[in-house]
Amino acid sequence: MPPEKLFTPGPTAVPWQVLETMSRPLIHHRTKEFREIHREAAENLKYVYRTSDPVVILTASGSGAMEAAVANLTRVGEKAIVIEVGKFSERWRELGEAYGLDLVVLKAEWGDPIDPDQVAKAFDENSGVGIVFVTHCETSTGVLQDVKTIARIAHEKGALIAVDGITSLCAQNVQTDDWGLDAVIGGSQKGFMTPPGLSFISLSENARERMEAGRHPVYYFDLIKAVKALEKNDTPYTPAHTVIIALNEALRMIKEEGLENVIRRHTRNAKATRAAVKALGLKLFSAMPCNATTAAVPPDGTADKIRNHMVERYGVRIAGGQGPVKGKIIRLGHLGYYHETDMYTMISALEGTLVDLGLSDTPGQGIEALLRSFAED
Amino acid sequence: MPPEKLFTPGPTAVPWQVLETMSRPLIHHRTKEFREIHREAAENLKYVYRTSDPVVILTASGSGAMEAAVANLTRVGEKAIVIEVGKFSERWRELGEAYGLDLVVLKAEWGDPIDPDQVAKAFDENSGVGIVFVTHCETSTGVLQDVKTIARIAHEKGALIAVDGITSLCAQNVQTDDWGLDAVIGGSQKGFMTPPGLSFISLSENARERMEAGRHPVYYFDLIKAVKALEKNDTPYTPAHTVIIALNEALRMIKEEGLENVIRRHTRNAKATRAAVKALGLKLFSAMPCNATTAAVPPDGTADKIRNHMVERYGVRIAGGQGPVKGKIIRLGHLGYYHETDMYTMISALEGTLVDLGLSDTPGQGIEALLRSFAED
Repeated sequence: MPPEKLFTPGPTAVPWQVLETMSRPLIHHRTKEFREIHREAAENLKYVYRTSDPVVILTASGSGAMEAAVANLTRVGEKAIVIEVGKFSERWRELGEAYGLDLVVLKAEWGDPIDPDQVAKAFDENSGVGIVFVTHCETSTGVLQDVKTIARIAHEKGALIAVDGITSLCAQNVQTDDWGLDAVIGGSQKGFMTPPGLSFISLSENARERMEAGRHPVYYFDLIKAVKALEKNDTPYTPAHTVIIALNEALRMIKEEGLENVIRRHTRNAKATRAAVKALGLKLFSAMPCNATTAAVPPDGTADKIRNHMVERYGVRIAGGQGPVKGKIIRLGHLGYYHETDMYTMISALEGTLVDLGLSDTPGQGIEALLRSFAED
Repeated sequence: MPPEKLFTPGPTAVPWQVLETMSRPLIHHRTKEFREIHREAAENLKYVYRTSDPVVILTASGSGAMEAAVANLTRVGEKAIVIEVGKFSERWRELGEAYGLDLVVLKAEWGDPIDPDQVAKAFDENSGVGIVFVTHCETSTGVLQDVKTIARIAHEKGALIAVDGITSLCAQNVQTDDWGLDAVIGGSQKGFMTPPGLSFISLSENARERMEAGRHPVYYFDLIKAVKALEKNDTPYTPAHTVIIALNEALRMIKEEGLENVIRRHTRNAKATRAAVKALGLKLFSAMPCNATTAAVPPDGTADKIRNHMVERYGVRIAGGQGPVKGKIIRLGHLGYYHETDMYTMISALEGTLVDLGLSDTPGQGIEALLRSFAED
């Protein structure tokens, strides 16, 4: 078997400079040394989030930070709009149900985004909505949501907006302050090029006021306590500090490359991948594709065969479909530390696989499309 | 400055074999390869827990698993006994308060355990107690609690018992099945010789029935979902799988050494440390010392000076006091991957510090006591 490399939309491949930090002897987390690392990491998260709001680091995966948002920013029976367009935005609905919210659920077919006009309509038809929960980039379908417009609509109606930015941060333009996003959630194992185990949540002044005014029972996910601890570069409970040390290294790399350049790299990789996928005769699944992952529809019944062959024969691990599109789509990842040459690796493995499985007899077309796309940009 | 080594009761020093796993390129967590690692780790956790109950691995620190116990095993208004003898057992009370339980709090002075007779008395005076929350080894004071007897009392009254074993697992005899412990919580950064980021919770059949019958709103800490996923060697949400890979390596080392030998190593190190501390003229703080950490009382006003000097001059980082004993005690850690020679490192640094600070003029007494203690055992 060839050595395996991840081309999945999370966990993503981690640069060796980040991996190396994880093999160092442990330091203690209640020290000046670690507090300085925590301070730097939290500061650089604000740089990626484009915010002056505090960004709390939680020892939990992204779903934990989503729960923190629901538990801290709502009360039992409160009205909330949930935008559900795939497996990960479904979690907002499940969380709202678990916490006894009065939900207005706006659904779209998997592969489609929600038209912001529908959100405006939902506000018109439902008074007293306190908060909107939305997923910026729906990982299960590769769909990007127009968060900027939805945020404007929510604010006009006096509601907060909480955004799952787990798959969009670093890959897309996320303007936390300029768009007025009240809470944005991130995860270490995505664009942040770090192993899983950490999630992040920014909190606007309005969000902080809201949680001070009343919320659900919380303890581990107590964001008031977490914000207070953050002011001292500390955490209420033992953090996964070796992962924070790794994150800090990854954030330094992002800062050195420059956020604009990082987003541009993602945009180029995504555009080239879409061109290659189309040149290979596959359909794009998403009506509004994001920069993190390209979902493609191969001939009926071949998706899992393609995926398995790619990893077994070429060592290129991509993702498949979930829920209603299980076995129907493949998802090619270009979120995180991926460069032009990595796209050649991924697309040549896909192209080789299509030829090996008798699904194509014109090798070279995917690579040609990649070359042309990168040359144009 | 000399290279720093941790002698703190968590995070503890991590063996290089475990650290090395963290620097490997990432694999994906939804693969046969990782499921096999997860299976082996969960199986070896059962070995350390001495249980046939499922032991769930959570991506959260120990306080997260404690919250999972409270949220899944109680209902609003339910009566519960909390045994509070220090900073970590205090968390059981805080959690009980956050979740609106009807608490019977049994307190002891910091440094003392609770007499099991008090627990029996509390049951006699309060009918309808559903669960007892207890900390096996209270890290903030080094006090060991008689969990076996308390479990017997709880079961006689038809109550469950949830045990914080974060600092006792691997260091003490923890008989989950034989003592009938309904939920036992562990943490990766303690006796398990792994970086922080993971916590564990075992669930007896009674505990599983109890949570099926009704509980608080849960999502990230949904233990019904977690147990179900565990049956397929899976997790409901993205786990910190690189830390699970590290944990698996640490558990292999524990299994190879043999749990009896691991506990015996802790017992010998703890006994020798106590002998050395006394020989150096310091008082033991704990009335019932555990095998994880030795809390000692140096002359008034010297605790933090000793601690700082030990790390700055000798690179030996120990812990100080918290809460009411802040600045009054030092805590010497021997939890995890520590051997006889490490105790010489730690005690010689303490002894050197006492001489350097003019608190002792008879060097050698601590080391002599260590030598004698190890020779006797």
